[in-house]
Amino acid sequence: MAIRLGDNQYGKAEVRLVRVTRDTDRHTIRDLNVTSQLRGDFTAVHTTGDNTNCVATDTQKNTVYGLARKHALGAIEEFALLLARYHVDGFGFVHGARMEIEEYPWDRIATVDGAHDHSFVRGGGGTRTTLVVKDGPTETVLSGVTGLTVLKSTGSEFHGFPRTEFTTLAETTDRILATDVTARWRYIGTDVDWDASHDSIRRIIVETFAVQHSLALQQTLWEIGRAVLEAHPEVAEIRFSCPNKHHFAVDLSAFDMDNPGEVFFAADRPYGKIETTVERDDAPSAGRVWESVPGFI
Amino acid sequence: MAIRLGDNQYGKAEVRLVRVTRDTDRHTIRDLNVTSQLRGDFTAVHTTGDNTNCVATDTQKNTVYGLARKHALGAIEEFALLLARYHVDGFGFVHGARMEIEEYPWDRIATVDGAHDHSFVRGGGGTRTTLVVKDGPTETVLSGVTGLTVLKSTGSEFHGFPRTEFTTLAETTDRILATDVTARWRYIGTDVDWDASHDSIRRIIVETFAVQHSLALQQTLWEIGRAVLEAHPEVAEIRFSCPNKHHFAVDLSAFDMDNPGEVFFAADRPYGKIETTVERDDAPSAGRVWESVPGFI
Amino acid sequence: MAIRLGDNQYGKAEVRLVRVTRDTDRHTIRDLNVTSQLRGDFTAVHTTGDNTNCVATDTQKNTVYGLARKHALGAIEEFALLLARYHVDGFGFVHGARMEIEEYPWDRIATVDGAHDHSFVRGGGGTRTTLVVKDGPTETVLSGVTGLTVLKSTGSEFHGFPRTEFTTLAETTDRILATDVTARWRYIGTDVDWDASHDSIRRIIVETFAVQHSLALQQTLWEIGRAVLEAHPEVAEIRFSCPNKHHFAVDLSAFDMDNPGEVFFAADRPYGKIETTVERDDAPSAGRVWESVPGFI
Amino acid sequence: MAIRLGDNQYGKAEVRLVRVTRDTDRHTIRDLNVTSQLRGDFTAVHTTGDNTNCVATDTQKNTVYGLARKHALGAIEEFALLLARYHVDGFGFVHGARMEIEEYPWDRIATVDGAHDHSFVRGGGGTRTTLVVKDGPTETVLSGVTGLTVLKSTGSEFHGFPRTEFTTLAETTDRILATDVTARWRYIGTDVDWDASHDSIRRIIVETFAVQHSLALQQTLWEIGRAVLEAHPEVAEIRFSCPNKHHFAVDLSAFDMDNPGEVFFAADRPYGKIETTVERDDAPSAGRVWESVPGFI
Repeated sequence: MAIRLGDNQYGKAEVRLVRVTRDTDRHTIRDLNVTSQLRGDFTAVHTTGDNTNCVATDTQKNTVYGLARKHALGAIEEFALLLARYHVDGFGFVHGARMEIEEYPWDRIATVDGAHDHSFVRGGGGTRTTLVVKDGPTETVLSGVTGLTVLKSTGSEFHGFPRTEFTTLAETTDRILATDVTARWRYIGTDVDWDASHDSIRRIIVETFAVQHSLALQQTLWEIGRAVLEAHPEVAEIRFSCPNKHHFAVDLSAFDMDNPGEVFFAADRPYGKIETTVERDDAPSAGRVWESVPGFI
Repeated sequence: MAIRLGDNQYGKAEVRLVRVTRDTDRHTIRDLNVTSQLRGDFTAVHTTGDNTNCVATDTQKNTVYGLARKHALGAIEEFALLLARYHVDGFGFVHGARMEIEEYPWDRIATVDGAHDHSFVRGGGGTRTTLVVKDGPTETVLSGVTGLTVLKSTGSEFHGFPRTEFTTLAETTDRILATDVTARWRYIGTDVDWDASHDSIRRIIVETFAVQHSLALQQTLWEIGRAVLEAHPEVAEIRFSCPNKHHFAVDLSAFDMDNPGEVFFAADRPYGKIETTVERDDAPSAGRVWESVPGFI
Repeated sequence: MAIRLGDNQYGKAEVRLVRVTRDTDRHTIRDLNVTSQLRGDFTAVHTTGDNTNCVATDTQKNTVYGLARKHALGAIEEFALLLARYHVDGFGFVHGARMEIEEYPWDRIATVDGAHDHSFVRGGGGTRTTLVVKDGPTETVLSGVTGLTVLKSTGSEFHGFPRTEFTTLAETTDRILATDVTARWRYIGTDVDWDASHDSIRRIIVETFAVQHSLALQQTLWEIGRAVLEAHPEVAEIRFSCPNKHHFAVDLSAFDMDNPGEVFFAADRPYGKIETTVERDDAPSAGRVWESVPGFI
Repeated sequence: MAIRLGDNQYGKAEVRLVRVTRDTDRHTIRDLNVTSQLRGDFTAVHTTGDNTNCVATDTQKNTVYGLARKHALGAIEEFALLLARYHVDGFGFVHGARMEIEEYPWDRIATVDGAHDHSFVRGGGGTRTTLVVKDGPTETVLSGVTGLTVLKSTGSEFHGFPRTEFTTLAETTDRILATDVTARWRYIGTDVDWDASHDSIRRIIVETFAVQHSLALQQTLWEIGRAVLEAHPEVAEIRFSCPNKHHFAVDLSAFDMDNPGEVFFAADRPYGKIETTVERDDAPSAGRVWESVPGFI
């Protein structure tokens, strides 16, 4: 028996980068949160404190800023690939990289003279995400959205579930369904129109949630996933990690009032938690890429 | 010398109320967070544990839900006034009330068939707030907005400040200016078109931020406040508590790169904190109403 | 009628300072969060963007670090007074200052060779706070504690409250009482042994919570406040802002189980919120010092 | 090509359970946060909304409370195993379970009459965690700690790292090292004295952090992991996900001051992020159990 070093990675987390493009008076801004992590031959760093192979996390941070200056900042998928390739191709002892980027939405401020050139207001609709895992030459792109909060005030049922010794929940044919969508989808290859694909998938998620009559949040997520895969051959699979944000109709009977689905208590904890995968049966294997993704099976 | 009970209030905080109106198939939803607090003759509760005058906080919670069922839910200012009056008028030992409400924005989901009847997505642009303080017959309404995040990528300078023994900051004629606006304005009276007034003030805040060339965040807030008061005779004063969210241009010179205002580090802490009041000199006194408002002088 | 600038203050918030004393191999550490704000003649900053009187918030940050190097770091009250006096005495246009400091607790790590010289673990028991408000020569010190979470598993009753049209809460003679204590007390003068006073008051708060049989959280806070004032003539008043963190006994009757105070659901929202003041009737006036303290009347 | 359901699980997250034992006047309390998730034959739930196999998440919540009443609450590992077995053994269509529990520490309040019988103060030192994954008959227990914040004011070096085109970091032989330890260790089997093992491992983590002279956070984690595995044959592997919480010595040279490791700025973001595994080479395979653990490779 011996004790040995197992899987490991390290880097700089949450490098906050705001990139302004000011070629003309009409600026554009991009607002990113970048987490850079490297995998490779780091045994000596651990076992003897020999940092010969340790690209400092401070250097990784500088690299984010330096490459953001050197290159036009494309889609976050492109930038994550650029960062991953920079490290894996540039250092013999770096064999893999995990680059995660969140992008926060900004809208131009509307004025009486139209949308403003250089003034912005933070938008709604959640955060765009990507996670690029590069393992030697193999590159996997998981893109997604998080914090996309949606709610249906009707069109949601829940019944037919087993009644165990601990079941008290009443069956219902009309409830509020609400969730914060966190979704990640895996692309086949990297030759993708990232922005167009993301916009379309995000639209399908929200619109399918809206129009789908729901018998369970699981069913809603399945239908969303199916719609995404049907419309997007470049996607191998999509995974969801979604809370069921309970809205309980308040019992007003003690006050001689009925409550026909009008007055609800929005609860915090506990909440349902539904994690599900919709996939193509002929998609290339994901390998171990999902292992490092919080909130997914 | 004697020890005595001083100012006190109590109630139920953060009652999460979602109110659905379903008179037709086209539902509307309202998403509120209500904090109800009472002031009055509560000495015995404190000194002997005699709860004769203690309207239980659980009862206050129920009252929020019950009144939300009984009455059409108007503007949050109206609902806060309703709650305040209910308690002060209803219980002889309740002399005052402090009702605070936050409202979260929701947009209808857009589908190919138009905006959906009963499906919604959480919107951006911050949270609408109100705080009603009722002291006997005197009612004061402070309305506001919080979490309204805005950014200018240029049009902001900062120079001419004194250079003390501890000053190292360089002067600049071009910086990013960003803040999360928290504002509260005090209405004169309660005969106000709450929704129209709020919409207009919010628009003035955002638009003035956009078009105003800034020499200091203080100046920007002053100009916003002035514009609000000029357009809204129903407003006695407006107060701001706004972080200066620093965006530092990254020094890339060690990498033989310039940085002409393109690559920024968005810092978390510390941050500037600017609190300012713009007021009419002939406005009625606010009394002690601001004392209980976090983040304001 | 004219529009004018009202009350205002500004500064740098949440300057995170860790101060190591390493005169010997046995280090001590202090871990502070400092918010520095100034009041004074800042009209031109607002109305014309003339920053002649604007000590930059960046300079205020540097001042925190510089003075922490120059002086032995005493109690946070001392350091806050030092910072306030530095600004008010040093700049003619600065008429007042508001200095707020939080201190986080650290314990030495226990090893087989005793408490370690330079290794520490973050302690429990909440954060020590102080707020110094200097208005010209008048100095007021409000010290306190926040995040001090306590719970009684019995010894708490709640009954005798009025039953309104919206009351459903059952009376009880045995419930869990839990809160996160946020307290602030105002000192008379500044000639105080800050550490000794703070340690004693904190001990009285916790111990009185423990031994006091409670008929209402209000009563518990009153008893705590009275005990503090009786033991501490240097304290003019003490104020509390405390949630009633509800622990609901779970109804297990549907499973043919009783629940004699053993199984509880710890709820998040809504929560009770009790704010109360215990004061000496002959104490010097607080002036407007409480106005800027979040969570207090 | 076909679209199909992939991996999925669902349940109730963050069921807050406080369990009081009151056999005598000397109460004990346990404060848990339980997340229950099931795996199994849930295809019809997803594809047709047929909930025949869907043990409602509300039922799972009730089960947590019901079993907490029925059984003496042992170590959280025991309770998680109990919950997992209850579902996998009880429902033919449930093939696996994932039960995650956090436990928050409470200390008795010290009074002049000794440690109090029924009054408690929340303790420091982080949260105890466990994650039990049951896959048919195979049971894996991952226990750990999170939020355990430690700091060394010296005894930490960092140098010898490669200088790339983007490196600016200076080498140092004396820096502050600080982290919030999140660790999880995998037990071999389930015949373990959970409390004794946990207490010892926690002690080794803290004490090794204290006494180990550090050349890199990676090395510190390796040494901690090695010490744990050497002392605990019942542990197959241990994994860490630890931020390097940077404390930057403030440059005071502009103020004609030196800074010999005394005045530090404690930064928030970005932070280093070190994830590492120390394992036995002859340990049984972990299977896929780590896949669902946030923050670990």
